[in-house]
Order: sequence, then C-alpha cells, then structure tokens
Amino acid sequence: MSVRRTPTPSQRLSSSSPPLTDGAPGVPVDPRRVVIDRVRPLVDCGALPAKATVGLPLSVSAVLVADGHDPLMGWVWHGPPAPRLTDSLAPPRGWREVWLDPQGNDWYGAWISPNEVGEWAFAVGGVVDEYGAWLRDLRIRIEAGQDTTLDLEEGAIMAERRSREGVSAADQRALAALAGQLRARTAHSTRLHQAERPQTVALMRRTADRSRATVSGTFPLWVDRERAGFSAWYEMFPRSEGAVPPRSGTLRSAARRLPAIAGMGFDVVYLPPIHPIGRSFRKGRNNSLECGPGDPGSPWAIGAKEGGHTAVHPDLGTIEDFDAFVDTARNAGVEVALDYALQTSADHPWVREHPSWFRHRADGSVRYAENPPKRYQDIYPFDFDTDDREGLWAALRDVMLFWIGHGVRIFRVDNPHTKPFRFWEWLIRDIHARNPEVLFLAEAFTRPAVMQRLAKLGFSQSYTYFTWRNSKWELSEYLHELSQTDETDWFRPNFWVNTPDILHATLQRGGLPAFKLRAVLAAITCPSWGMYSGYELGENVPLREGSEEYLDSEKYQLRPRNWDQPQSLAPFIARLNAIRNRHREAIAQLSTLRLHHIENEEMLCVSRTTHQRDDVLLLIVNLDPHAAREATTWLDLAALGIPAEHPFEAHDELAGNTYVWQGPRNYVRLDPAVTPAHVLHLRRP
Amino acid sequence: MSVRRTPTPSQRLSSSSPPLTDGAPGVPVDPRRVVIDRVRPLVDCGALPAKATVGLPLSVSAVLVADGHDPLMGWVWHGPPAPRLTDSLAPPRGWREVWLDPQGNDWYGAWISPNEVGEWAFAVGGVVDEYGAWLRDLRIRIEAGQDTTLDLEEGAIMAERRSREGVSAADQRALAALAGQLRARTAHSTRLHQAERPQTVALMRRTADRSRATVSGTFPLWVDRERAGFSAWYEMFPRSEGAVPPRSGTLRSAARRLPAIAGMGFDVVYLPPIHPIGRSFRKGRNNSLECGPGDPGSPWAIGAKEGGHTAVHPDLGTIEDFDAFVDTARNAGVEVALDYALQTSADHPWVREHPSWFRHRADGSVRYAENPPKRYQDIYPFDFDTDDREGLWAALRDVMLFWIGHGVRIFRVDNPHTKPFRFWEWLIRDIHARNPEVLFLAEAFTRPAVMQRLAKLGFSQSYTYFTWRNSKWELSEYLHELSQTDETDWFRPNFWVNTPDILHATLQRGGLPAFKLRAVLAAITCPSWGMYSGYELGENVPLREGSEEYLDSEKYQLRPRNWDQPQSLAPFIARLNAIRNRHREAIAQLSTLRLHHIENEEMLCVSRTTHQRDDVLLLIVNLDPHAAREATTWLDLAALGIPAEHPFEAHDELAGNTYVWQGPRNYVRLDPAVTPAHVLHLRRP
Repeated sequence: MSVRRTPTPSQRLSSSSPPLTDGAPGVPVDPRRVVIDRVRPLVDCGALPAKATVGLPLSVSAVLVADGHDPLMGWVWHGPPAPRLTDSLAPPRGWREVWLDPQGNDWYGAWISPNEVGEWAFAVGGVVDEYGAWLRDLRIRIEAGQDTTLDLEEGAIMAERRSREGVSAADQRALAALAGQLRARTAHSTRLHQAERPQTVALMRRTADRSRATVSGTFPLWVDRERAGFSAWYEMFPRSEGAVPPRSGTLRSAARRLPAIAGMGFDVVYLPPIHPIGRSFRKGRNNSLECGPGDPGSPWAIGAKEGGHTAVHPDLGTIEDFDAFVDTARNAGVEVALDYALQTSADHPWVREHPSWFRHRADGSVRYAENPPKRYQDIYPFDFDTDDREGLWAALRDVMLFWIGHGVRIFRVDNPHTKPFRFWEWLIRDIHARNPEVLFLAEAFTRPAVMQRLAKLGFSQSYTYFTWRNSKWELSEYLHELSQTDETDWFRPNFWVNTPDILHATLQRGGLPAFKLRAVLAAITCPSWGMYSGYELGENVPLREGSEEYLDSEKYQLRPRNWDQPQSLAPFIARLNAIRNRHREAIAQLSTLRLHHIENEEMLCVSRTTHQRDDVLLLIVNLDPHAAREATTWLDLAALGIPAEHPFEAHDELAGNTYVWQGPRNYVRLDPAVTPAHVLHLRRP
Repeated sequence: MSVRRTPTPSQRLSSSSPPLTDGAPGVPVDPRRVVIDRVRPLVDCGALPAKATVGLPLSVSAVLVADGHDPLMGWVWHGPPAPRLTDSLAPPRGWREVWLDPQGNDWYGAWISPNEVGEWAFAVGGVVDEYGAWLRDLRIRIEAGQDTTLDLEEGAIMAERRSREGVSAADQRALAALAGQLRARTAHSTRLHQAERPQTVALMRRTADRSRATVSGTFPLWVDRERAGFSAWYEMFPRSEGAVPPRSGTLRSAARRLPAIAGMGFDVVYLPPIHPIGRSFRKGRNNSLECGPGDPGSPWAIGAKEGGHTAVHPDLGTIEDFDAFVDTARNAGVEVALDYALQTSADHPWVREHPSWFRHRADGSVRYAENPPKRYQDIYPFDFDTDDREGLWAALRDVMLFWIGHGVRIFRVDNPHTKPFRFWEWLIRDIHARNPEVLFLAEAFTRPAVMQRLAKLGFSQSYTYFTWRNSKWELSEYLHELSQTDETDWFRPNFWVNTPDILHATLQRGGLPAFKLRAVLAAITCPSWGMYSGYELGENVPLREGSEEYLDSEKYQLRPRNWDQPQSLAPFIARLNAIRNRHREAIAQLSTLRLHHIENEEMLCVSRTTHQRDDVLLLIVNLDPHAAREATTWLDLAALGIPAEHPFEAHDELAGNTYVWQGPRNYVRLDPAVTPAHVLHLRRP
C-alpha cells in the first residue's frame, strides 16, 4: 500500500487554544440539512427525459432525509423547461408547486399532471419542518404533563419572526394572531389545540423559512399526447382488403374496412409498408425463394422503379388515395400509423442514386442483409457508417417528414435495434422539435437491454415479450417488471396478441377460448394493446408444427377475408375496448397495477386503478383455455381502497352480471367455453 | 391538450427530390454505436465516490449495447483522477486498461485493483468488435458450406487497413502476415483456424479501430486502506481495566490488557470517550438520575473544568499515558480507535467560551438534549446552525486533527445521524485531504435511508442491524441486501455482536451457545465485526426483562472483570479471527457472498469466496442455541467453482476434522452443546 498524498503534519491543540487556522476562515459551511436521493422518474441520471403523458397523473417520488428526528416538508416543482433554478424559495415563473406526501421509510411522493405536449421538467425540494417539529414536541410534553410555558413562548416567537419575513398581509395578521393565542392565559392544551388546527398548520407550511431548503437539479420529462399512454392498435394489409387475387386490394377498397375497425373500438390502424415492392429476388408464397408470376412480394422489400420510401405502390393507388384513406380514418375516429422500415430492395431508386449509402463487398457488389448462414438477397440494409452520413440521415428523416406532411403522426418503426441508437436519438429529437405530437412504436424483438435503451432514447411505445408470456408465473413476473420497476420511467409497453410474424403456440392449440383470454389479458392489463387482422376470426394455422409463422402468410400473398363469419370475436373485442374506454385512466395508469393472490396455478388476478382509487377494475383470468377452473381470491383490499368490513359490488363488465363480495376471500369459477375472464368493476353498493 | 410549439409546415418530397435542407447540412451525426448504461460502482450518479479498498479486487460492471448483433469489446480504464478524458483511443497517462468480460444479457464486468489510498477514478469504454463479428460469420458460413472467398478477402483488407493505423512495428508485421494467410491458397477452413488462433484474436483486439468507441465519463472512487474492508474490533472501557472501585483503572493499567486482545485476533481496540466527564446532572448507576459520590459518570458527557474534547480524563492519566497506550497497542499489532462524540456536558469549557455554539431557550438557558418526553440534562448538543458555523465546524475538525496528531487513525463516530450530513461530508473530505488513511465508523442506529446517506457521503464503515437479525429469514434477507444490491458500492457493514447499549434477547436467553453462534455469524459472514468486552465471558444479564441495556452497565460504573474464567470464549474467538486471517480475501470480498439452500428453518448456509474462487469457505450454522439440528445442504456448486462429478474435501477449520463430500447434497448435524457451526474450507483432495 502506498499513500499518494503526504499528510500535513498534525498539530497539537488544547481545547482553549485558538483553532487551527489553515482551513478555518474558509470552512465551506453549507447550511442545507435535507438531502434528496433516488428521485424518480429518472432516465440515465437525468441525461435523457423520462416519459409523461397528457391527461395521466405522473408519480414523482424521492427519498428525503435530514439529520435528527424532525419532520420534513417536501415539494415538487414542475413546468416547461426553466433556464436554471437559482432560488430555493420559490419555483421558476410558470412552474407549479405540489406538496410531497410522506410514504414511509423516508420516501415522499406526489402526483403531477403535465398538461402540454413537449419538453417539461421538474425539481424536488425539501426543508426541515420547524413548526411540525415544535408542534410534535409540544403535544408529547403536554401529554406527559410537563411544563410547556417555554415551548409555547418559542412557538409565539417563531410566528412573530415569520410575520417579518415578507409574507402577505393576510398571513402577517394570521401569524400575529397565532402568536397572541400561544401567549394567551388559556390552558396549555387549549393553546395546543389552536396550534394544531389545519388552517394554522397550512399557514405555517406556507410561511416556512425556505432559505435553508435543498432543491434538486431539474430533471427532464418528455410529455406525449394521450394516445402515447392509451391506445388500441389494429394492423391490416390494405392490399388484402377488397382483393380478388391476383388483383390487389387498394387504399380505396381498404378504406371501406375502417368503420368496422373503429366499431371494434380500435383507435390506431397500422399499415405495413405501402411503397413499391422490389422485383429482384422477390419472395414467393410462404417465404419461398421461387416467386410465382402473381406473387405480390413482401411489403418490407421497399423500392422499385416506381419509387421508394415516399411513393405509394401503384397497385394500392396514388398519394391522393392515401390522403383519402387518412381522411376516412380520421372521420371514423381512427388514426393511421405507417411503417417506417429503413431498408431497401435491390430495385430502390437510392441504390443507383446514392450507392455510398449501402455497404459494398470486396468484389464491389452491394452487401445484402444476412443473418449467417441465412441470406436475404431481396433486402439491402443502409450503411449508417457511410462517409455521407449527413446525406443519408437527413434523407431518412425527410421520409418521415413527407408522411407527416400527409397527416401521419404515428410511426411503427421496423427493427430499430439494427440501426444505430444515435440515429434514433437524433431523429426523434429532430422530429419532435418540429412535430411534438408524433409517436414512435419500436418493433424491437430483441434482448432486454436493447429494448430498454430504445425506449430510453425516445421511442414512445415498445412491442414487448407479451406473446411469449403465457403461464401465471411468466405473466406475474412480466407485469411486475413493467409496472413496478424503474422501467415505468421510460418504457411504455404495447401488448400485441399476434403479429404477421408471431402466431404463438397458445393460439395454435387453444382455439377461440385462447384467442379470447389472450385478448382480455392484453386489453385490460396493458395501457396499449394491438392485434393483427385475422385474429378476430381465430386464424391459427402455422406454417408447420413448431413454427410461429402463419401458413400462407399475408406477408407474401393476398389474404382477402370474410369478416362476417359467425364465430367472429369482433363483438367480444368491441366489448373489451369499450371497457377500456369507460375506465380510461385506470387502464392507462400502469404504476398502480397490482397482482393479487388467487389459489390456482392457472388463474391470474390483477387490479387496475386510478391513482386515487376512485375507479377500480379487477381482472380474473383462467389461463387454461381447455378446462374450467375455480379458486378463491385473496385480495389486497388496502391497495384497492376497499374497507374489509363492508360488502362491495363486483360488476362484471364482460358478462353484465353483478356479485356482492366482502373481504379479501371470494370464490370464482371460470369456464373457458363460456368466458375466459371476469372484468369486475368494484364499487360501493 | 395543447401543443406549445407550432409544428413546422411539412413539405412534400419524392424519393428523387433533393432532401429537405433546413436541417441537413447540420445533421449532428454521431458515429458511436455502443451505448454504456448501468455503470457500477456508482454513488449518486457519480456525484460522490464509490468505495474501493487497497488489496481487495473491485468489480466494475456495465451494460454495453450496440445496434445489430455484432459482438462488442469493452474495457475499463482506471487510475488517479485525470484532468479530463479527451480521447477514446487510449487511457489517460498513468491509467490502466482492463478488458471487460461478457457476463450475459449485455452485462460486462471486470475486476480492478486500485492500489493506492486516496482519490481514484474509472471509465468504461466499448466499441463494436469488427474482427470478432467477421470471425463469427466466417465460421458459420464455412460450417454451412457457403463460399467464403469474399469474406476471407475482406478479412485481409481489414488486417491491411489496421497495419496502416499507427500500430507498433511488430503488430504491423503480424497484420501483414495475417493478411497473407487469409489470401493464401490453403483450404478456407485452414485459414479460419489461423484467424481464430488466440494470438491472432489478441492482435486484432489490440489493434482495433477505436475512433468510433464510446467512453463513459469518469466515475470517482475513494480508495481506503485495507483495514476499511477487513477488521475485527474490540471495545473496552479503559477505566474498568485494573480498577479497584471506587478507584478507576488508567490508560497504563488498561494497556496491560492489549496483548490478550491482540491474542484473540482483534486488530482494532476502540475506546469510548476518554475525556473529562461533566459533574452537573451526572448519571448514577444504571442511568439513575441520582449520582452517588463515587459514581464516575457516562464518558459521553464530555467536558469538565479539566478540559473538553482534547483533554484526557485525569483518572485515566495524561496525554503521555495515551501516547504510550497507542504505542503499546501498535507493538501488539492492534490499532486504537477513538470515539468522536460531538456533544458536551454542561461543564465543558466551550459552554462558557463559545455560548453561541449551543442552542438557547426563550429564557436564555442552554437547550439540553431531549427526545420528548425524555430529557438528557447532562448532555448539550451543538447548534450546527449557529451564526458562528465556521468557528464551530473548524473547532470540531481540529479535535479530530488533535487526536490524529496523537497517532489515532480510526474514529468511531457517535450518533452521526443527529448532526448535519453536510458537516460530515465536509469533515471527511477535509480530513482525507490531509490524512487519507483515516477511517470513520458511523454509529447510526436509525432508518435505512439515513444510514445509507452517511455511508454515501464518506463514512468508511457502518454499524448495522445485525444484532436484531436472528432468524434464518432475517439473516438471509439482510445478507442478500448487504452483498448483492447496489449498497455494496458505498456501504461497508460492520457486524457487532453486542455494544454497551445492545444486549439482544438472543444472548440473554441462549447461554454460551448463543454467544458462540452469533460470534461465528458475525466473524465469517461480514468483512468487519466487533465485540464489546464482557462478551467473551457470556455476560447476559439485562437491566430488566424486555430491556437491551446491561444490568450495572459499564456506561455508568466501573466493571473490572476476571478474564481467566474457565468458560471464557477467548480461545473460540481467537480461532474465528485466525480463520478470518487465513482466508482474508474471501472474507473481505462481500460481493461474492452466496446463500445456499439448506433444508432446515433453523440452519443457515453461506459461502464466502475470493472472486476467482481459489479460496472457498462454507459456513453452516445452527441458529437454535437450544437443540441439535440436522439437514441436507443443496449447494450452488457453480457459484463455488466446484465440479459436481468429483469429490471434494470439506475441512472444518473450527473443529479441525475433514469430510469428503460430493455434489450439492450433503448431510450436516450441529449440536450447539458441541459447536454452533461448521466453517468449512472446501478444496480439491
């Protein structure tokens, strides 16, 4: 062991000798007693904004500690970004102050409601509650029968001192009156009662000396519009809708389906790429390397001689048809989301116009996509490391601006994890600086750290592992992670029950009951959920045993459907979305989600509540699509704000009937042939 | 919802039109692909230093992610604080570079060994492993029977490019040779084998292009000397040792006890305050308000006409006697720790000399200590909010410097949580700037957030809740928290089996077997542990039923003891400390502590290993001091680095015998009348 710094020779002192002077005059005394720790929401120590949503109260919390045992007062300031906090006494102009409530073990919390889309910020402050400490000690001493003459006088002095500290004239009078009361010749207990009246406590809180308060730095928030935190998505291939193979459907024919989609309660309709599709190496049916003459190809092989990312596939129609589709959707109450897939076919105009935007091999050929040993010769990735980075990045940004110009405000981003993080961070900031209302859904089915990083750097919503979480244990762990960990600060999950790439074994084998149970799970447990068309018809045939691909996948061929089949789940799905809309805030507020004990390994019990618990939903699901299951709940009534001693109504919003329950233990039986779930609205009778 | 910024009017583009130009020329392209997240150790986002210890490898870890699926290379740089990192290519002068190892799920880690006491810092860096990605793809393609002519050529080009990038002459030659091998007319699989040779991989790692590497900011460490992370403490009241009541023992008579303390293997002897004791309101025996004529008073009532915090109590001797005590201790291999208790008696010289350093009541009297309704009229707290803050803070600092001048380098700080955090933060920094080898033990028995805050702001060690953690569940949870959470970055626990204030019910009721089991738990599970004298004699009589105070507490009276009682645990304790010293690094390395399953609710199984698992200890304890218990272990052999298929020796370092075990399941029986525990050294036969 070696010591780098030579210790200063120590000096001997006696208690009465003058203090060592080398440091004394400059002792950097800091009078702030409160320390603020573990502030949330927080992303990368405040380097990136945490997420907030207009219309959805946001929990702000922190640990506040001071020396000793005195109570503390804490608050949160919030508002549009302020130049700099310079003052511990008052928030910056235009900011609001909300008191923090103590939550035990030195945690403090408050709910704030940022009400404008865009950049926002908050700061947390705290100071020792001088009056609260005085009041607490006074109360204890009076109860112990001690003389409190001096204590009351000290309270009066505190009130007088504050009346001289620049408070309002009304408060000045109230403080003077309080000082008088504390010195009155009444019983000490009478004066205590006056001192602890709520209006007196509020007065002393309002006039507290904050000159020694601690205020944190400011922490950034990005506030999205409401749909970022509450949405129901429907994915459709417009070319299938109204198709008479080999003739493609069009945007005009697809638009006729929009009222039915809106009728099921969806508010976002997402279209896979609508651009011209490459012909070189075009994939045939079921991803075959052999392409038949009528095969339309995968929409993700973007670009042909007709154009690239800003062109409309001629089979679908024109840009005017697209504009009309957006209008029709808007009129039906549905918003159009477009795919943003940053890759090209070999026939994309950019391959000729900007060869430097692509990687080339040692023989000069363009490097196509590969996941060795698999080769995707129909797809060219961009070279984000190209020497013409500025040109490429700007062009990709301009594609998005083009579609924004055509009314699109939501983009489902294809495979963002295969493009540089710094690109997305820049792109989302750049777009948000122009159009803060734009939303981005990250389709990154990859490792957790990568999904989290994309969410941190700005994606509004993220696809999840939901399709692969089917057992009680898997769902419990995953719901806990998504609602109770710091991921809620940046990650907004979107539960998709299926996608054109994912037909899970549960659906392949479970029949319509499985389709219903997975839909109710997604719709009720997650603020945002989604479905790829065909789900409502129970389409469940995989490409082959063990595959999650659909047989005759719509990715490679036209799939017109008869929507009027009698087994259609459309009415069931409409009911789910109607429940969501009736309990909008409870469904959107992920951080209050709670799992409740239920004594059956195939049943799950989850509550969804507003933060004030004035709207309480309880979902009970039978995860087994094959057999009836029964069990007794063990509800955490405190989390639901329901007293154990009174009966309460449990109104099943799926079935329409109402039970009267009391206490935590209640019997439930669910037969998947009838219904996979109760969605119970709990309320006082 | 309102939107604050007016969206820029969007423009229509076609794929061949020039890009939107308002942002294009200034696109702030950032070519770094790796993002670094969740760096540890980390305290308050790097605002405060994390703790490291000379001689004890420190785990540094982070999440590194990049887009796509390419492997990454990561490293940690560390050294004395550097002015600023300006270069991603090489560490600052005097810093070392250690490669990070992938640990799964995008986590990377390395062990570093800061070897100098004082300020230190580290940074984490990462870049996409271009060669690793190329090698992986080449291997897959060759295995799949694909043609790899182009791949090999591209590898050769990579080697050639690097040979032009300022590498050493030797590496230049090696790179040229590699390029040649990759272009040789040998079989592709032969060339692959050459490309994946370890020295080639090391070459390509060493010469990797780091111009696009990501390097984190620097994160501070405070490096303490070894004793901060590994110590065995013994607390004694020197006035009892050699006392013939009412005559006090002295520092000279107490020094005669030091060889026995060293003989038990303790390396720190901690003395409660040795200063003159106030006479006003002096407490009598058993904390009585009535003080008898011979009662010596509580040492924590510091100050009398003979002096204050820098004086030695006349009954104990002189400052020269103290110097001699320190010398004797040093010669015995024990370091003296002094109490640092920032309070005074009413008779302290400062009460007259510096009345402004104390709080005064409305009637002008000095405010004594209170915890309403309890009153401590013999104790005056300091007013850290005094107008003469600079004078007070400097004087308190100078007290510490005085004792540093007398050879003290460890301070046990009394009740730090009742003094401002900012005071401690300043004091510890100030002292460390002069004497970086000084250690501070925080005696803060208070709420978790407050204990954590004190540790974060610089205390070297902390008392813990250990005395109140007795059941298997309590101990398991607590050991997990202290060893497996981010608290390890700043909190160094010290497990005390008793203190003059805490005689736990387990000891009151469990007899000597309880004393042995609590000692073995503390000594083996915790890097630092401590004992207050009398423990080795099994002193277990409380003040009254339900109290944790000792009857006839040494805090208020002299307690000379006969150390030669036959039941003394001194030999047992000496054995424990000898085991600790033989397995120093395994005991000191808290982050590798693991709990193993053992099928008995009264038994606990804990392993302690070096980070390289070249020294493995397994502690198995019977927590029931009243009855024999038996169980089967279920060891996590992977965590111990022991293969399941071979037998291994389990040598009991307490009892001296050796078992031959194999696999995870092994039978254990512990009779507290014989021994409460096995301390097994696991090794290959």
